[in-house]
Amino acid sequence: MGLHTRINTAVETAIRVGQGGTAPAKLSDALHYACTPGGARIRPTILVSVAMACGDDSPEMTNAAAAALELIHCASLVHDDLPCFDDADYRRGKPSVHRAYSEPLAVLTGDSLIILAFEILARAAQHSPDRAVRLIRTLSRQSGMPHGICAGQGWESEAKIDLSAYHRSKTGALFIAATQMGAIAAGQDEEPWFELGARIGEAFQVADDLRDALYDSETLGKPVGQDDLHGRPNAVTVLGVDGAKSRLRDILSGAIASIPSCPGEAQLAEMVRLQAERLTPVPTTRAKAG
Amino acid sequence: MGLHTRINTAVETAIRVGQGGTAPAKLSDALHYACTPGGARIRPTILVSVAMACGDDSPEMTNAAAAALELIHCASLVHDDLPCFDDADYRRGKPSVHRAYSEPLAVLTGDSLIILAFEILARAAQHSPDRAVRLIRTLSRQSGMPHGICAGQGWESEAKIDLSAYHRSKTGALFIAATQMGAIAAGQDEEPWFELGARIGEAFQVADDLRDALYDSETLGKPVGQDDLHGRPNAVTVLGVDGAKSRLRDILSGAIASIPSCPGEAQLAEMVRLQAERLTPVPTTRAKAG
Repeated sequence: MGLHTRINTAVETAIRVGQGGTAPAKLSDALHYACTPGGARIRPTILVSVAMACGDDSPEMTNAAAAALELIHCASLVHDDLPCFDDADYRRGKPSVHRAYSEPLAVLTGDSLIILAFEILARAAQHSPDRAVRLIRTLSRQSGMPHGICAGQGWESEAKIDLSAYHRSKTGALFIAATQMGAIAAGQDEEPWFELGARIGEAFQVADDLRDALYDSETLGKPVGQDDLHGRPNAVTVLGVDGAKSRLRDILSGAIASIPSCPGEAQLAEMVRLQAERLTPVPTTRAKAG
Repeated sequence: MGLHTRINTAVETAIRVGQGGTAPAKLSDALHYACTPGGARIRPTILVSVAMACGDDSPEMTNAAAAALELIHCASLVHDDLPCFDDADYRRGKPSVHRAYSEPLAVLTGDSLIILAFEILARAAQHSPDRAVRLIRTLSRQSGMPHGICAGQGWESEAKIDLSAYHRSKTGALFIAATQMGAIAAGQDEEPWFELGARIGEAFQVADDLRDALYDSETLGKPVGQDDLHGRPNAVTVLGVDGAKSRLRDILSGAIASIPSCPGEAQLAEMVRLQAERLTPVPTTRAKAG
């Protein structure tokens, strides 16, 4: 089974746990709608890749971790798209959840997916209670307050933004969760994996800023120029397009250099290189900047 | 330390975990605002009472469980008050979170409190990984989809409501969580405690319907008549005021009869009787019905 199929199967299996017999039908449908078909599934791909590099001795634990991380990511997208945040009509080329269903159902979909993520990990404790508890601790730390993606969004309501805390929590947090949860799922210490996650997160942020500046909304399947619109800081605004591209390359070299010694180190470096190529934007239709 | 102080201390301690040094200040404040000063803290009171009836051999685990349950309850209130649901301007006699802060911060406050609840339980795993995992499994099941409070809210978006599933998930779920988590925190099997939680939940639903019909919004500190307004089912509409009061008494007798045999059985029965007196509404200012 390829990595992409493995991850999609894990996500589908997790969603079914949230869709029992007497569940309200629309909310039940919305859970599935919000998570499938997925985007690049980049966070769980990194998670599973790290677990495989560490030996992947408990594949069920790895699958649960990958699904839980992706559910939290999808929940954040559903809530970020709400009218009170980005007010986005489209996501991944189809109507956003509050457009396809309703605003109440979008709030509940996000809430349900967050809770489901932790339920999936608690169920996986049958394979190893110790790893399950560490996965829950890591996922909650990187998702909530004071350092997770909720904190990242929270910074956007402040008059004065701590830029480094903002970027680390808004984008970096779930990549740190990805590398650390991959290590934990495979029975390894998570601390040495912090830096790889943080660097991938930084690269992703710069790449996202570049895409936001260079692509149109049809290519991206979501609104562009949201940073300008909401006055959020952006690498392209600070460094220019060429400067941001050069910064992206430096960060990715650093990411590869930071990979801890492990059985699958070479393959993992190759995966990061592949993700780097995916991340590097090539303008297709019209350039908005640079 | 009295029960109320013990619970409030546990909640305050939990909130501080979500308020680290570099956290965004408004969201950090909003977490505290949403949970303090508390209401009756009825769910954690039941949880701690059950744990004490079972011997309470790990008070830190009980405190973590009580705090986690209350955080989930507070999160649900914050999200229920949002403009797209009840659009409530007041809660517990002060402005609702989206009125006091903003709608984005209210969404994030709910999300952060949900995540914090699971983080608190994962941290408590140092005392017993097995109990922590069972607490997380129980809390997630009674909070999310398909049977938890998210499902309960989800039913309100359906054209045809499964009334029994609706009530069990909307109100019953967190009372079932209360009795079962109390038992788990004290190292006992949770299954025998399901019925007590379900019956207390049912009583609470009928009492809430009675208060909604008999009291004005100033007395309650929240809007009344929301069920009529939103076309939601209500015990007073079906049974009348006297019928609903009589039903409330029957349910509470059943609740007391269902208490499993345990060292503190008599005291626990007394606690349920006390809660029953609190629940039974006495009209004060003007009667809206009956």
